[in-house]
Amino acid sequence: MSAHVMPSAQYLYDLADGDASMKPLLGGKGAGVAEMMRLGVPVPDGFTVTTTACIDTMKASGQWPEQLWSQTLDALTRLEERTGRTLGGADKPLLVSVRSGAVVSMPGMMDTILNLGITDATVEALGAESDNPRFAWDSYRRFIQMYGEVVEGVPAYAYEDVLSGKKASRGVTQDTDLTVADLKELVEEFKDVSREHLGHDFPLDPREQLERAIGAVFQSWQNPRAGIYRRAHGIPDDLGTAVNIMQMVFGNRGDTSATGVCFTRNPSTGAKELYGEFLINAQGEDVVAGIRTPRPLREMESELPPAYAALLETMNNLEQHYGDMQDIEFTVEEGTLYLLQTRNGKRTAAAALRVVKDMVEEGVITREDAISRIEPAQLDQLLHPAIDASHGQKPITKGLNASPGAAVGKVSFDAEDALRRGKAGEPVVLVRWETTPDDIAGVIEAEGVLTAHGGMTSHAAVVARGMGKPCVAGASAIKIDPKAGQLTIGDTVLTVGDSITIDGSTGEVYAGELPLVPAQMNEDFATVVGWADEIRSLQVRANADTGEDAARAREFGATGIGLCRTEHMFMQADRLPVVREMILAGDDDSRAQALEQLLPMQQSDFEEMFTAMSGLPVTIRLLDPPLHEFLPNLVDQALKVQRLELTDGDEKEIAEERNLLRQVSALTEMNPMLGTRGVRLALLYPEIPVMQVRAIARAALAVTKRGGEPIVEIMVPLVAFAEELRRMRAIITQTLEEEFEAAGERFEYMIGTMIELPRAAIMSSEIAEHADFFSFGTNDLTQTGIGISRDDAEGSFLSSYADDDIVRANPFATIDAGGVGGLVRLGVDGGRATKADIKLGVCGEHGGDPASIELFNELGLNYVSCSPFRVPIARFAAAQALLKQQAASQNG
Amino acid sequence: MSAHVMPSAQYLYDLADGDASMKPLLGGKGAGVAEMMRLGVPVPDGFTVTTTACIDTMKASGQWPEQLWSQTLDALTRLEERTGRTLGGADKPLLVSVRSGAVVSMPGMMDTILNLGITDATVEALGAESDNPRFAWDSYRRFIQMYGEVVEGVPAYAYEDVLSGKKASRGVTQDTDLTVADLKELVEEFKDVSREHLGHDFPLDPREQLERAIGAVFQSWQNPRAGIYRRAHGIPDDLGTAVNIMQMVFGNRGDTSATGVCFTRNPSTGAKELYGEFLINAQGEDVVAGIRTPRPLREMESELPPAYAALLETMNNLEQHYGDMQDIEFTVEEGTLYLLQTRNGKRTAAAALRVVKDMVEEGVITREDAISRIEPAQLDQLLHPAIDASHGQKPITKGLNASPGAAVGKVSFDAEDALRRGKAGEPVVLVRWETTPDDIAGVIEAEGVLTAHGGMTSHAAVVARGMGKPCVAGASAIKIDPKAGQLTIGDTVLTVGDSITIDGSTGEVYAGELPLVPAQMNEDFATVVGWADEIRSLQVRANADTGEDAARAREFGATGIGLCRTEHMFMQADRLPVVREMILAGDDDSRAQALEQLLPMQQSDFEEMFTAMSGLPVTIRLLDPPLHEFLPNLVDQALKVQRLELTDGDEKEIAEERNLLRQVSALTEMNPMLGTRGVRLALLYPEIPVMQVRAIARAALAVTKRGGEPIVEIMVPLVAFAEELRRMRAIITQTLEEEFEAAGERFEYMIGTMIELPRAAIMSSEIAEHADFFSFGTNDLTQTGIGISRDDAEGSFLSSYADDDIVRANPFATIDAGGVGGLVRLGVDGGRATKADIKLGVCGEHGGDPASIELFNELGLNYVSCSPFRVPIARFAAAQALLKQQAASQNG
Repeated sequence: MSAHVMPSAQYLYDLADGDASMKPLLGGKGAGVAEMMRLGVPVPDGFTVTTTACIDTMKASGQWPEQLWSQTLDALTRLEERTGRTLGGADKPLLVSVRSGAVVSMPGMMDTILNLGITDATVEALGAESDNPRFAWDSYRRFIQMYGEVVEGVPAYAYEDVLSGKKASRGVTQDTDLTVADLKELVEEFKDVSREHLGHDFPLDPREQLERAIGAVFQSWQNPRAGIYRRAHGIPDDLGTAVNIMQMVFGNRGDTSATGVCFTRNPSTGAKELYGEFLINAQGEDVVAGIRTPRPLREMESELPPAYAALLETMNNLEQHYGDMQDIEFTVEEGTLYLLQTRNGKRTAAAALRVVKDMVEEGVITREDAISRIEPAQLDQLLHPAIDASHGQKPITKGLNASPGAAVGKVSFDAEDALRRGKAGEPVVLVRWETTPDDIAGVIEAEGVLTAHGGMTSHAAVVARGMGKPCVAGASAIKIDPKAGQLTIGDTVLTVGDSITIDGSTGEVYAGELPLVPAQMNEDFATVVGWADEIRSLQVRANADTGEDAARAREFGATGIGLCRTEHMFMQADRLPVVREMILAGDDDSRAQALEQLLPMQQSDFEEMFTAMSGLPVTIRLLDPPLHEFLPNLVDQALKVQRLELTDGDEKEIAEERNLLRQVSALTEMNPMLGTRGVRLALLYPEIPVMQVRAIARAALAVTKRGGEPIVEIMVPLVAFAEELRRMRAIITQTLEEEFEAAGERFEYMIGTMIELPRAAIMSSEIAEHADFFSFGTNDLTQTGIGISRDDAEGSFLSSYADDDIVRANPFATIDAGGVGGLVRLGVDGGRATKADIKLGVCGEHGGDPASIELFNELGLNYVSCSPFRVPIARFAAAQALLKQQAASQNG
Repeated sequence: MSAHVMPSAQYLYDLADGDASMKPLLGGKGAGVAEMMRLGVPVPDGFTVTTTACIDTMKASGQWPEQLWSQTLDALTRLEERTGRTLGGADKPLLVSVRSGAVVSMPGMMDTILNLGITDATVEALGAESDNPRFAWDSYRRFIQMYGEVVEGVPAYAYEDVLSGKKASRGVTQDTDLTVADLKELVEEFKDVSREHLGHDFPLDPREQLERAIGAVFQSWQNPRAGIYRRAHGIPDDLGTAVNIMQMVFGNRGDTSATGVCFTRNPSTGAKELYGEFLINAQGEDVVAGIRTPRPLREMESELPPAYAALLETMNNLEQHYGDMQDIEFTVEEGTLYLLQTRNGKRTAAAALRVVKDMVEEGVITREDAISRIEPAQLDQLLHPAIDASHGQKPITKGLNASPGAAVGKVSFDAEDALRRGKAGEPVVLVRWETTPDDIAGVIEAEGVLTAHGGMTSHAAVVARGMGKPCVAGASAIKIDPKAGQLTIGDTVLTVGDSITIDGSTGEVYAGELPLVPAQMNEDFATVVGWADEIRSLQVRANADTGEDAARAREFGATGIGLCRTEHMFMQADRLPVVREMILAGDDDSRAQALEQLLPMQQSDFEEMFTAMSGLPVTIRLLDPPLHEFLPNLVDQALKVQRLELTDGDEKEIAEERNLLRQVSALTEMNPMLGTRGVRLALLYPEIPVMQVRAIARAALAVTKRGGEPIVEIMVPLVAFAEELRRMRAIITQTLEEEFEAAGERFEYMIGTMIELPRAAIMSSEIAEHADFFSFGTNDLTQTGIGISRDDAEGSFLSSYADDDIVRANPFATIDAGGVGGLVRLGVDGGRATKADIKLGVCGEHGGDPASIELFNELGLNYVSCSPFRVPIARFAAAQALLKQQAASQNG
């Protein structure tokens, strides 16, 4: 913004003296109207009390600065001169609106007073001028009511009681049925009501009213709801608000007057076409009240041709000037067009894309502008089915919006049931307390998942996001009774087979079947995201565990797989028994046998991955979770054994189950997150990574033979010590060499590590000696760095921390830039100190989060990796991050 | 060390040209003997092949450097000239020993060849010279055997078989019963055996033997057992060894010859008195073989007066020169004294203290030298009872040495039993799978604790160390069957009431009752630790949770309490029910009531603490653990409910137990370490810290009234975000002010925080804004920083990591200096950036570990805090750390 040097005591600006750059001083609305005036757009005249006046008043505990009132009177006098009208003048009275106007828009949060200037002395002149005494008297009683409520704090019911009484005594139901005489009586009665509550007469001097109205706007900055809004939106408390005093214009001064709203393009589709509504002889509130039906804007052409022409021209000018679709409020007063407001219009995701695409083609904006305009989170709408906006239903509860998109289906309480019914073609929604790896098959067949427990990164949430399947997690109000086949939320009871609708984009849950609209990944999307690709420097890869996911990721524009979680392959229903065999093997031989069985399964998985991603890198992470994740739950198993014991079960079965219990118990850890997993497990049981590496090697060789081009990156999880990686690298290299020797062929490969423990970040320069690449596992780095278990925390203290503003954002959704981001920075610096060109990426959930991507771009990482459905969003966000960084470096 | 400029090719040094400073080149033994020669101490003449020769040979894959052999021959010629003897000479033959001599002593790891120079040509001359042909021939056959085995790799059994056969054929059992003729035969037979194994004749040229012997010593540096030893002791693999060639001297050349060993002081008590043994007409191995009983050194005065006088003078000189008690090997050859070796003598802890104390008083060393000499870990011996060294029993198993000291008692398998029998005066050892807070009362009454599960920082270990009670943890070989009242280790079965002995200093466990020697904190200890106090800059505080512990800590020299864990107060048997009431309270009122009951209990705890520590600071940590720690275990409770259900239990009881199960289940976390505890819990339930702060305030005011001087520091655990501490500070301050107002009196206080999460370390500059002090909780910082759960890891991968050399030391015992230490460093830097004089301490287990104390001293912390029994050790270690740092800064 340009610097305005201002005498310290200039608290007032005429609209004609302002412009858009003065927003900090004049507020958004004041600067906006001033800018319009500067552009020659017809707007009502007026002036603005600056934010500085508000700030100085707050600092002085409500005491106005010395010059403020006299400057206000001067500005008023100038306005009276320009308009040829006088505030309180019996002849040509000036009526004004008094509106708040903060630097950042806070819609509905603060106070507005309309029609200030109607008094006993002016009401008749107003009626005569408009040839509509009823309008004048109705405006007068409305003004007393509004002023009394907003400025003087008279309770609303006090006026409403009198108004209801009046209508009752006249035998009418609508305000509009009251006569001028009734309204005249009401004005006097409203004054009496005000006096009763104020303990003094209603102030009749419009200058006194103006002074008190400005003061009320200042105070409204500090009302509780405004404070809550600011905290929710991160707006500082000390900005203050400006106050805009503008001449009232009236759309209800007969048949050459009108009021309306229009968009410069269709906000629903983005098409460049006329879009708006108007009403002849009406005020803005008539449109809102819905008593009269507004008419399409096109019809204004015949009714008010000059004003219509002026509006079209103005719309075009404003759109060109702001370089974005405008949402405009206008009034025509006796044939003259006035714009009351223009702002960038809210729009659907599809429209957002269409608008920027068209505008680039029209030469209004650049591609860079286009990219900066798109809100990446909004694009999510396009990538998943959504609930049709017209449904009008109330949600029965709300959980976490864990995986976007909407789903409709019959309630199912267990994964096997969901699997069976889903396979049979019945749409089901799997409803669970929380999901476990055992539920995977059911999740695959379900339309969506609803859990009572767990957070944004719970098992259900991660799996669902990976599959692009809607999920509402942690809906703690739902009570599930699987035995009874019932789900209870407050008074609502749903049984197996009842329909339910979940919206994973909002977290809302509805009873019954709501209509959905399908995903719409269209040409505009492809075009605009293509521009993003030209701009961004961060590569975007996907996290995918199957060939199908990899293929989808590639469609969405992923240029590689950043994380293939081999354990998800272990958890497939047909493999779990073999995996358990391996874990429970009593000796090396039987373990070797089980691994021998798993090898071809893993190999075929990898062949699918390499084929789908031919020519692009695939990062395969060796087995990560602790072994007990593949076994039954300890409590369940202990209960099973006791049940068998107490009910005289089969001796042999008891012995077997006891044995399993012993093993589960031995493997169950107090804090599995910090336990024997990842590289630790691999070094204890090297036969497991050896099997996996063999499968990788054989798959890559097989795919090459079929003409594919696998690019292999092998990743070691949970490394804390350089020595761990050194040894794993030796094991991996040796295994690969054995396979190469056996096959008589070889391929290039990289070996790298996750950096997902604080120690690894700090000691990254040592670790880099054995790594071709680092992939920052920011999920785990968040867990260990902040000391929060994502399995536990979101349901408990973390949500209360977010509600209570102790943390700004959920650190699992958006990276904690200072703390966890600080660790990533240490990791990056250390890695590059050892190997200047070490490849660096991120494969945590943060890889798909725009705010986090900003940090990763700034750190100069090579890539982010996220779930396939987030890939387009990440591509946008990466481009935006770069543009933002460039802008900052130009300004800084 | 002084710098020796050396022509690159000087691989050989005569002893007369060396000195102590040349240890890196000449090895420890070579430099030591050279130093003795320089001091005029009589030693056998000789020369040294340098470590550089060994290194260059290793680098060339065993190929000797060009000049090495010619230089060796030159040195040999010089030695022959000086001694008037010739290697292989038939007249006056020169015999030499060839010994390895690394820079760092590796006793028993490498090879030695004695009597090189005996040949067919010289053996007779040797016999004649010594007037003892039997000795000459026996030496010859021994030489062939030793040379064959060590240099040529002939297996030992090959010679032993022949020797046995010879004795059998002669009908004798002792080697000494063989005649000269027998020995002559054996020499020939040994040559034959050698030829058979070598495939060529036994080398008879002593110069060739010498060359091959030197090569063998070089190679022995790389033998497997030497490699293992080096890794275990952190000795680099590339140092190489020197080789010492010295003239043989013989203590068995008749009645004016002798051999012996002596100490310059009594190594058992430290007293300055004659201590040693000798044998007339004997070799060193005769002393070791135990065939003849050595005589007290004093008796040598009459037997060999000049040699005795020379020895006394030499002993005195060497002790003065080295400034430490010497352990000396000597030989008298025909009346002439030769010292073969001198080194600092091994000694008991008590002797170590006595020696340095006396030497300071004698003016031999400074107080700083005295402190540097003491091995702090050794002092542990003095602070706890120990098993009498004479027991001769074999341990039945070995666990972790979790808390030092030895204990004897009857086996008890549950805490209540231990409590009952302990209170009745019966010594018991509590044996558990692992301990829980429920077991505390039993632990208090037990003599010691043995667990099958858990590591150095398991519950049992931490509690036992805090109480100074012996504990062996994680003795995984023991099987406990509490129902049967049996404990099985291999074949050993112990039942309730059987005696057991555990040694918490070594981890060893013995069946039966072994004799103990009591703790001995004597005057020498007090004197020397007093000197340490004058030197160190780190304060030493104690971790203590009771007045009794605090009083003990003060006795041990703690200058404050660095950590008072208020939860230990919650876990006392009489309080746990009230704590559970508080946790399970259905509403705020009943929670308030329970807290009201706890308040006076906590207050009386704090009064005891403040009284015991009057005038010294007491840091009280607000409640830290998650609430479920105070409830029954989830599995146990689930089993209980099911049992009641399946056995038709009382309906009301079932309902109650189900309710408890529901609450336990709701509070049980997947990863409690990363869960809702510490400040997170405090902010969710502020009534808990408010109660604790009230108790602190009232206790401090009450103690002040009684004339005490409480110094109050309140500490907030598990802070990750500055905002958490800001809010807690507000709650604490407000509560204190309320109490001050109510009492009409106030006191000074500090409010600080634990830095125990990586984020806290990284964001410490922000956190410091709200903290008067930081206390680094390095236990938790290790858990989160490295991602290791101490409850799980030590039993599983961590122990295999230590065995397998992936980590150098258990990071819970000695701080991981680079990783976790790096976090501490970030925390220190950030804290000081905000507040230059912020008070900084450590209260993790590392606070009592000498190696960790070195780091804390280097970081300039204000204090460490450790369990009371570690306080004296920490005082020593802190002084040593400072001395080491000063020495390093002088050298660096």
